[in-house]
Amino acid sequence: MAAYRQQRRCDEEAVFVVEGPKMCAEALRSGFAVRVVCATEEFKAESLKFKDSGGEFYEVSDAELERLSGFKSPNQVWMLVERRELNVAGGSILSLDRIQDPGNLGTMLRTADWYGIRRVVCSRDTVSCYNPKVVQASMGAIFRTRVEYVDLPQWLAACGMPVYGASLGGRPLSEVELPTADAVLLIGNESRGIGAEAMAQVTHPVLIPNRGGTAESLNASVAAGILMERLWNN
Amino acid sequence: MAAYRQQRRCDEEAVFVVEGPKMCAEALRSGFAVRVVCATEEFKAESLKFKDSGGEFYEVSDAELERLSGFKSPNQVWMLVERRELNVAGGSILSLDRIQDPGNLGTMLRTADWYGIRRVVCSRDTVSCYNPKVVQASMGAIFRTRVEYVDLPQWLAACGMPVYGASLGGRPLSEVELPTADAVLLIGNESRGIGAEAMAQVTHPVLIPNRGGTAESLNASVAAGILMERLWNN
Repeated sequence: MAAYRQQRRCDEEAVFVVEGPKMCAEALRSGFAVRVVCATEEFKAESLKFKDSGGEFYEVSDAELERLSGFKSPNQVWMLVERRELNVAGGSILSLDRIQDPGNLGTMLRTADWYGIRRVVCSRDTVSCYNPKVVQASMGAIFRTRVEYVDLPQWLAACGMPVYGASLGGRPLSEVELPTADAVLLIGNESRGIGAEAMAQVTHPVLIPNRGGTAESLNASVAAGILMERLWNN
Repeated sequence: MAAYRQQRRCDEEAVFVVEGPKMCAEALRSGFAVRVVCATEEFKAESLKFKDSGGEFYEVSDAELERLSGFKSPNQVWMLVERRELNVAGGSILSLDRIQDPGNLGTMLRTADWYGIRRVVCSRDTVSCYNPKVVQASMGAIFRTRVEYVDLPQWLAACGMPVYGASLGGRPLSEVELPTADAVLLIGNESRGIGAEAMAQVTHPVLIPNRGGTAESLNASVAAGILMERLWNN
């Protein structure tokens, strides 16, 4: 099982790793097909439910769990779940250009879920949404969101919706024209922002004004949250 | 030097660890007193500047840097910097009740810096702002922000400002009465929110409405960003 610490192995078999009691319970509830459950004895009280998951069930030692896990402090249960493409019709879309940090991607999926966004379209070089740290930070949103990896500039050009993008040359957030129908919110790379080709497809550049004058930038997932609240708070 | 991986040792000597070229350069610019600089040979081009820091300078191997660092992939330079209490007069304040995740605290310092907030008042059981992960995630805000640890309910009761606090029983964000002068924004623990005693001091409970209906909560630093934008965007 430790081979599934390699993202490539997971990609080949179209599965992903879910860890810890909270996320694993979300996985069970989600209806995603469970292939394998590995749980420590400590997890016994919960194990009955997990034995019914339809997947193979193994009791493992703490040391074995550590070998399986990508986390420093693995937590009682590790699951291998089959990927599934969710059907999503219509609605606004979060779009991501070259996001690299798994914590940021997971947090953005979580925030999108909060705002009822069911579809996230990423550039091909955005971090994989099946990275265990993304799954963890998404707090279950990974089971409710359709995440696609595409040629982003091309997809934006053809999406037929207004594209809002954070940009230093944009209009201040409070003055920007709000969407009256479905829209795309585009967030760029943590240090380099939105790439030139994707930026050329932005119809509504938006600036979150720097009130303090000392900070260089906002964290990408914080900026995404502020923009989602502005665009989709009703 | 590896002893400074222990927070207690840093507390005793009133110093903190700063890592990586970007944060170390911020530390130099900040005017904080530098006690020690340890840099790898790779860092040579930059080292001249760091030799002038006033601290002891050591060239270290990659293996030595790894022993010093709390990070998985330490990056060229490690510094020991003396703590300093910044003077801040007036202004709005970010207040934190039992924030546990260093990444969240650092990100909130960074966002506060963006909004010109120079003072952060924390409950005593909030994670230390001198944790290297906080310093890293703050992107330099640690050098520009006064961070205090106090008996929080007592401090809130005496602060003489309106206290905005995220609460499920609060008014929706778009309907909340905005502050007309300096105010306090209170953010609670990642899983348990604001404690009862601190909540009793909240004069303006605020709710960020859950538009999707499926997510359980927002990440604490994303929620803080959304609220700071609402309260302090002008």
